[in-house]
Amino acid sequence: MSKVRVVVAGPRGRMGNEAVNLVKNTENYELVAVLDHRHGGKLLNDIEGFHGFSSVPVFSNIEDCFQNVQADVLIDLTIPEVGMHHTRTALQYGVRPVVGTTGFTNDDLQELENTCNEKELGCIIAPNFALGAVLMMKFSQMAGKYFRDVEIIELHHDQKLDAPSGTAVKTAEMISEVRESKVQGHPAEKETMAGARGANFDGMHIHSVRLPGLIAHQQVMFGSEGQMLTIRHDSFNRASFMSGVKLAVDTVMKIDTFVYGLENIME
Amino acid sequence: MSKVRVVVAGPRGRMGNEAVNLVKNTENYELVAVLDHRHGGKLLNDIEGFHGFSSVPVFSNIEDCFQNVQADVLIDLTIPEVGMHHTRTALQYGVRPVVGTTGFTNDDLQELENTCNEKELGCIIAPNFALGAVLMMKFSQMAGKYFRDVEIIELHHDQKLDAPSGTAVKTAEMISEVRESKVQGHPAEKETMAGARGANFDGMHIHSVRLPGLIAHQQVMFGSEGQMLTIRHDSFNRASFMSGVKLAVDTVMKIDTFVYGLENIME
Amino acid sequence: MSKVRVVVAGPRGRMGNEAVNLVKNTENYELVAVLDHRHGGKLLNDIEGFHGFSSVPVFSNIEDCFQNVQADVLIDLTIPEVGMHHTRTALQYGVRPVVGTTGFTNDDLQELENTCNEKELGCIIAPNFALGAVLMMKFSQMAGKYFRDVEIIELHHDQKLDAPSGTAVKTAEMISEVRESKVQGHPAEKETMAGARGANFDGMHIHSVRLPGLIAHQQVMFGSEGQMLTIRHDSFNRASFMSGVKLAVDTVMKIDTFVYGLENIME
Amino acid sequence: MSKVRVVVAGPRGRMGNEAVNLVKNTENYELVAVLDHRHGGKLLNDIEGFHGFSSVPVFSNIEDCFQNVQADVLIDLTIPEVGMHHTRTALQYGVRPVVGTTGFTNDDLQELENTCNEKELGCIIAPNFALGAVLMMKFSQMAGKYFRDVEIIELHHDQKLDAPSGTAVKTAEMISEVRESKVQGHPAEKETMAGARGANFDGMHIHSVRLPGLIAHQQVMFGSEGQMLTIRHDSFNRASFMSGVKLAVDTVMKIDTFVYGLENIME
Repeated sequence: MSKVRVVVAGPRGRMGNEAVNLVKNTENYELVAVLDHRHGGKLLNDIEGFHGFSSVPVFSNIEDCFQNVQADVLIDLTIPEVGMHHTRTALQYGVRPVVGTTGFTNDDLQELENTCNEKELGCIIAPNFALGAVLMMKFSQMAGKYFRDVEIIELHHDQKLDAPSGTAVKTAEMISEVRESKVQGHPAEKETMAGARGANFDGMHIHSVRLPGLIAHQQVMFGSEGQMLTIRHDSFNRASFMSGVKLAVDTVMKIDTFVYGLENIME
Repeated sequence: MSKVRVVVAGPRGRMGNEAVNLVKNTENYELVAVLDHRHGGKLLNDIEGFHGFSSVPVFSNIEDCFQNVQADVLIDLTIPEVGMHHTRTALQYGVRPVVGTTGFTNDDLQELENTCNEKELGCIIAPNFALGAVLMMKFSQMAGKYFRDVEIIELHHDQKLDAPSGTAVKTAEMISEVRESKVQGHPAEKETMAGARGANFDGMHIHSVRLPGLIAHQQVMFGSEGQMLTIRHDSFNRASFMSGVKLAVDTVMKIDTFVYGLENIME
Repeated sequence: MSKVRVVVAGPRGRMGNEAVNLVKNTENYELVAVLDHRHGGKLLNDIEGFHGFSSVPVFSNIEDCFQNVQADVLIDLTIPEVGMHHTRTALQYGVRPVVGTTGFTNDDLQELENTCNEKELGCIIAPNFALGAVLMMKFSQMAGKYFRDVEIIELHHDQKLDAPSGTAVKTAEMISEVRESKVQGHPAEKETMAGARGANFDGMHIHSVRLPGLIAHQQVMFGSEGQMLTIRHDSFNRASFMSGVKLAVDTVMKIDTFVYGLENIME
Repeated sequence: MSKVRVVVAGPRGRMGNEAVNLVKNTENYELVAVLDHRHGGKLLNDIEGFHGFSSVPVFSNIEDCFQNVQADVLIDLTIPEVGMHHTRTALQYGVRPVVGTTGFTNDDLQELENTCNEKELGCIIAPNFALGAVLMMKFSQMAGKYFRDVEIIELHHDQKLDAPSGTAVKTAEMISEVRESKVQGHPAEKETMAGARGANFDGMHIHSVRLPGLIAHQQVMFGSEGQMLTIRHDSFNRASFMSGVKLAVDTVMKIDTFVYGLENIME
């Protein structure tokens, strides 16, 4: 089987760097180029921190890149501003994009979907590549059909500014799409200290714990008479994202449609 | 909408008793008869422990029952020996069975499936009606596709005789159907005290905790670099089974096929 | 060794009933009488629900009781209104009280302490007999000396009216006696949904989860750089109180002072 | 108040390096010298990786060090072979040692205790500086007096070679010092898969979980009728040790005796 030829955008970024290593360490992947606006014309080897990439060219312009290099997949973990341009251009050149972003607008997504359909090309845009977190949300939504009583506890380090976390809100939204609406707790329930019962989202309660030492954790608890079902994800570091990127690369090669969200390629 | 007319087999058993209450407390269900080998000919009201059922006849013979009473669903939570006869007979009379048992043979199940297909009648046989436990197993299987490293901890009261629990083994079996086989842990791993690493099932490890105070709990843990996904079910008492029975009754009225296992009617 | 002669007040109450069984099932205890305002003059055997107590007299008046029966210990799990009278009277007669109540006033407690000192008699008043819960609070207080960052999550069934629970507030109070005061979380932390960060007690956060299926649970989490310490108590039923009652009875026989709170007899 | 003058041995080691930073970041500590066999005669500033220490001399010989520099405390997180020599010498010069090691023999410890008593000098030797882990063990021992039924689950990354972990064995040993001996579980309990019930230590069971993603975690579970008490420690990284080192330095300045184990200075 021929190798999957990959271009990585933003190799010096934290995530891009992990993606370079992922491609390097995966037997049937081949890194054919990188996009880096500052180092165009060099070899990847020449950029500080990269060794063993003497044959990988660096391009500062994506059109140059695809005109000179045959690629199958573009991995883009940069920022929405350049990400949309990269994705659009990749599709123009018949390269399948795997893009990690929450920043595309609905119009962007619609445009990409149309292009994919027209060209019958796979494309995966994912707000979250941590497979465990994606499954936690997917399972929570599935369980929400059968359990109307749900509470979410999310736990993060104490340097986090906002509460609740984006993942907790997203999880609650996904559950509320399928859950029969309900105000939980006893109707006469009373807080003797304000805030004890947490935030309220469509009758579900969300609690945000902040402690030094913690990293990023969430547990979703479903209760009904005589039982409880708990789904928990612990994220210890960003290496966890790479298994999701790999799943996306493998999948994007097999599909000829547009997919938003990893949960839609996990069954 | 007309009510679902239900017959309950074994109303004096612990589970049958809960089923009688379920039917009584569900608005669109109607209890039209019970099967009780010892009290045939009485009214349910006359059996000790039952009140408010003055119009519900008791039959000791299932054929008598269905010849005299129009029913939609039979709920049978008795024992496999009578359960198979009940299920077969119900289908003969066009009554849809909902049966809780692990005791039917493959031949039994094949026969029932054939009858269902022939008569285009719904029938649900379930080894486990605890929705949370069923979802825990279903989600574990789904996660097993993406995480090869799994450990199962099951925790029960210290009067339990066998370890690991049937649910833990079933879970491991379900995961191994989809998980790429792997011997987990470090290849040079060494137990300095025998048994520390638990039981081994296809390279997965299973740990059985027994403590007074505990009831029935299981957590399935999936790890990969930088993250962990945990799915846990706590069963506090048998009331938890009734939400599963209700789901099965509601579903069996809508289908015209044979289903084994609640996981197959939960999506 | 001679047996400990015990009088139980309120044998028909849920807790009193468990106490009668505790005395019955403990080899070196002997039930010498019960106090029951409605059944004075009978034998315990004659009260519905009690068997095998043909020699245990029932008294409706505590003075009568102690004038007629030689006792070592009074177990009183009734209500504060009669509890104080019972405790005072027991001490008058040289009987050591073991009392479960949160209802005594500071004046009551002071009076009892004075009487104990004067008579050199042991007496134990405990707001909580669940040893696990008492240890959870004691350990939390100890940990609070070394960890300034604490969050408490208490979880109860959804029929509970008040949030946070009395135990959670008590725990926070005990921790704040030793913990260096601190407003936890990031100074610029912001709730995008009100209540997400829970209730605030001296800078600590308390979260109250309510779900059907749950019973009574609490976990106290301490974080510092790179680590977390969690102390959790799960209460599944009231049988858990009896090991605490037994510890109190055994201890009250060995001491000649007044003790408030089981934590003070656990080292 | 004058500052505590600290010497750190082994500043280039992972732990020694953290200790240098601890001293630097603690207001009332002052780093007066470091011991480094390879860089004697330089300033700490001159060693790669250290900035802002232009006035801190490096000694390769500990006697030289204490002859030239006035110090209050020696922090030694090196290896047992040099650690014992360092500790002995520090005490000779009136410097209080804080040493992290599990490698000293009983004879070593006895000798150090004698010297401390003679010179009325504080000295703290600790096998573990993670305060949370030390408290977990201390609380587990305390709980073991009241709960005879205990199971330990320790969870580590899958590169760990031995099972169970040293901390789990140490915890079990500490509990067994106070726990009334008991073979747990049902007497007729049967493993249908070998190892399910874990390792056996004095009737307690120990379970070792190994998964990629995990770091170092342990939970000790105590059960009795109707309740469970769980004590858990999560260690996410080595920064957690420094709060223990700080506690030891602060304490060693106040005591004039020998202490082995941080648990003995935590109350």
